[in-house]
Amino acid sequence: MHFKDALPLQSGASIRAYDLSYETYGVLNADKSNAVLICHALNASHHVAGVYLDESGQVQAKSEGWWDSMIGPGKPVDTDRFFVIGVNNLGSCFGSTGPMQINPDTQTVYGADFPVVTVEDWVDAQARLLDALGIQTLAAVMGGSLGGMQALAWTLRYPDRVRHAVVVASAPNLNAENIAFNEVARRAITTDPDFHGGHFYRYGVLPKRGLRIARMIGHITYLSDDVMNEKFGRQLAPTLVAARTALPPEGADLARGGPSLQSQAPTLVAAPSPFKYSTQDVEFQIESYLRYQGDKFSEYFDANTYLLITRALDYFDPASAHGGNLSLALATASAKFLLVSFTTDWRFSPARSREIVKALLDNQRDVSYAEIDAPHGHDAFLLEDARYLGVVRSYFNSKVAV
Amino acid sequence: MHFKDALPLQSGASIRAYDLSYETYGVLNADKSNAVLICHALNASHHVAGVYLDESGQVQAKSEGWWDSMIGPGKPVDTDRFFVIGVNNLGSCFGSTGPMQINPDTQTVYGADFPVVTVEDWVDAQARLLDALGIQTLAAVMGGSLGGMQALAWTLRYPDRVRHAVVVASAPNLNAENIAFNEVARRAITTDPDFHGGHFYRYGVLPKRGLRIARMIGHITYLSDDVMNEKFGRQLAPTLVAARTALPPEGADLARGGPSLQSQAPTLVAAPSPFKYSTQDVEFQIESYLRYQGDKFSEYFDANTYLLITRALDYFDPASAHGGNLSLALATASAKFLLVSFTTDWRFSPARSREIVKALLDNQRDVSYAEIDAPHGHDAFLLEDARYLGVVRSYFNSKVAV
Repeated sequence: MHFKDALPLQSGASIRAYDLSYETYGVLNADKSNAVLICHALNASHHVAGVYLDESGQVQAKSEGWWDSMIGPGKPVDTDRFFVIGVNNLGSCFGSTGPMQINPDTQTVYGADFPVVTVEDWVDAQARLLDALGIQTLAAVMGGSLGGMQALAWTLRYPDRVRHAVVVASAPNLNAENIAFNEVARRAITTDPDFHGGHFYRYGVLPKRGLRIARMIGHITYLSDDVMNEKFGRQLAPTLVAARTALPPEGADLARGGPSLQSQAPTLVAAPSPFKYSTQDVEFQIESYLRYQGDKFSEYFDANTYLLITRALDYFDPASAHGGNLSLALATASAKFLLVSFTTDWRFSPARSREIVKALLDNQRDVSYAEIDAPHGHDAFLLEDARYLGVVRSYFNSKVAV
Repeated sequence: MHFKDALPLQSGASIRAYDLSYETYGVLNADKSNAVLICHALNASHHVAGVYLDESGQVQAKSEGWWDSMIGPGKPVDTDRFFVIGVNNLGSCFGSTGPMQINPDTQTVYGADFPVVTVEDWVDAQARLLDALGIQTLAAVMGGSLGGMQALAWTLRYPDRVRHAVVVASAPNLNAENIAFNEVARRAITTDPDFHGGHFYRYGVLPKRGLRIARMIGHITYLSDDVMNEKFGRQLAPTLVAARTALPPEGADLARGGPSLQSQAPTLVAAPSPFKYSTQDVEFQIESYLRYQGDKFSEYFDANTYLLITRALDYFDPASAHGGNLSLALATASAKFLLVSFTTDWRFSPARSREIVKALLDNQRDVSYAEIDAPHGHDAFLLEDARYLGVVRSYFNSKVAV
């Protein structure tokens, strides 16, 4: 979808003519009351559900949408009933206007000149997409992690246009530790000599070293201690040569987006060997897994997009305009809410979701809350878990009228 | 202390003639029964207590030893009673033989050719130092974090030479998450173009970018979520110019070693400003703090030492030779033990200390255990905390005879 009018941004800047990539699933009903907007997190896209077919009509390998377990015919968010919209955010690198594209003012690639966008800016851009689709009111807006922040922002910025908000594994703002992890990842990228101040495109290089480190840090924080111990523990890695043989093709899971245990490290193809006594070679399986994830990510993700999206996470803080009082901040919201958190998520812990629940209850809002006992850490919001999917299914079945 | 005989290493390699830097405090008694060996963690040194004087006899600023709150006259480890030895480990960069020094075989700087050393290798080297000092048996061996691993290894490798072991904020091995953090830090260093495969000394450069990232990651994991929120929260940083004015001199706390909240970020010298809406400038105080800590560390710490010491952490696992059974592994130990952990330490959690306690109890060993409710995370082992220092004081007063 192309938008001709400039979008004013929270920073005071604006984005001139821009495009948003989006996908839809299911059928918009006659009174346009069954639309569900899905907001994505750091490295996902508009491709939230379903698969892509190749020219011969065959399903493309690993082309499932990043929330395909959640959304589709007969699934918790049932596309036989709802008209679901996935949209790629401004500044991302999967089709919507972002740093890799041409700045109409200069006719050169935006790079580091792409304006800083916030969660609220994304919501404004999504609202324009709904305008263009003729949808006044969403049956629900839904997202996990940073996507949950967008869902929350929708209820504050456009309270009359949202009937339900489903906020999964999210938080009312990032705490210091989360900002810290984002900052280390950003510094790894910006201090990579191939970053060139964000204008690396001109030099024909990519700051892959930095992107690899950023992704490795991210992966550690998406997983729980428990699941890392269970999956990798102190197991030794096979030799690198053997491991490389076992890898899927580079970038194979590009379309999925989203951090996931489902995109696994190479399987163990050789018996554990004794230590190599090396500081630079891989010794442990967890090292092999992280290097592989880092390498893969650096092949497809844009470095400037990584900076922009982590900054949007840092900035989000609806309570800040109300002296830090979240209850005051959420008084604007009139939607009904479902909040979901996961017990082992230390990046967006249940305590942060409970802050939102409490602030909504302070305002006598209708709020359901489920704390799912799941071992997978923050990653759990992308994975199949019967209790988690069951809660969302129940909510949409029993509470979300169309 | 110079050692003429080669030291055989666990890897099968050996280190030819080598030096160990050490300091002592207090007086060795006539029957040499009051020696306490202090083992250091990642980035500390032999300078565990006391201060240095300059040429005019004045105390040098920030020259306190890294465990000065613990060790000294009248302190928990009382140097009026004990003869305390601090030793810098092989492979470190504070005086003992390490990667920055000349390889006698090649007459060039070791760099990446310095052999990989393990916790057990360090213990062997420390035992030789005790031999040279004429000390057969230690009243106690003591350390925190990686230093605690050395204390534990002492009780297994030289059970007849240790009467007490004090193991603080440590673990019987690293779990997958800890190995993962080490690996990301190592990759940041080894993929820095200035690393040159570890032979950067030849090129007249230092892999400072990688060291900065490594240190930033380390700092996040040394602190608890709670203390980061309390100390930094979402507070905005002053401008960089103002912040730099407030900085102490570069490398001022070099001698202290050890991660510590006591070496603080610049104080806030300007009123909080609104967002700059920038992905590359500092916005939040936590970013300023981490950048400062990273910059400072990169000025004084050797990159190859960082790799070696994190690898020693990864490798340590006394249970591995016993099919993973820690109780079997600790059957060799005959020392009495004090274990201490801190409730908010998520890098070396109380659960890991309890594993050691349980394995010692399985062997009917004499073990005391204190779990200190402290807010500071892993860093707590280096900080002044009345309950923590009180426990150690009581143990040394009531149990450690000389």
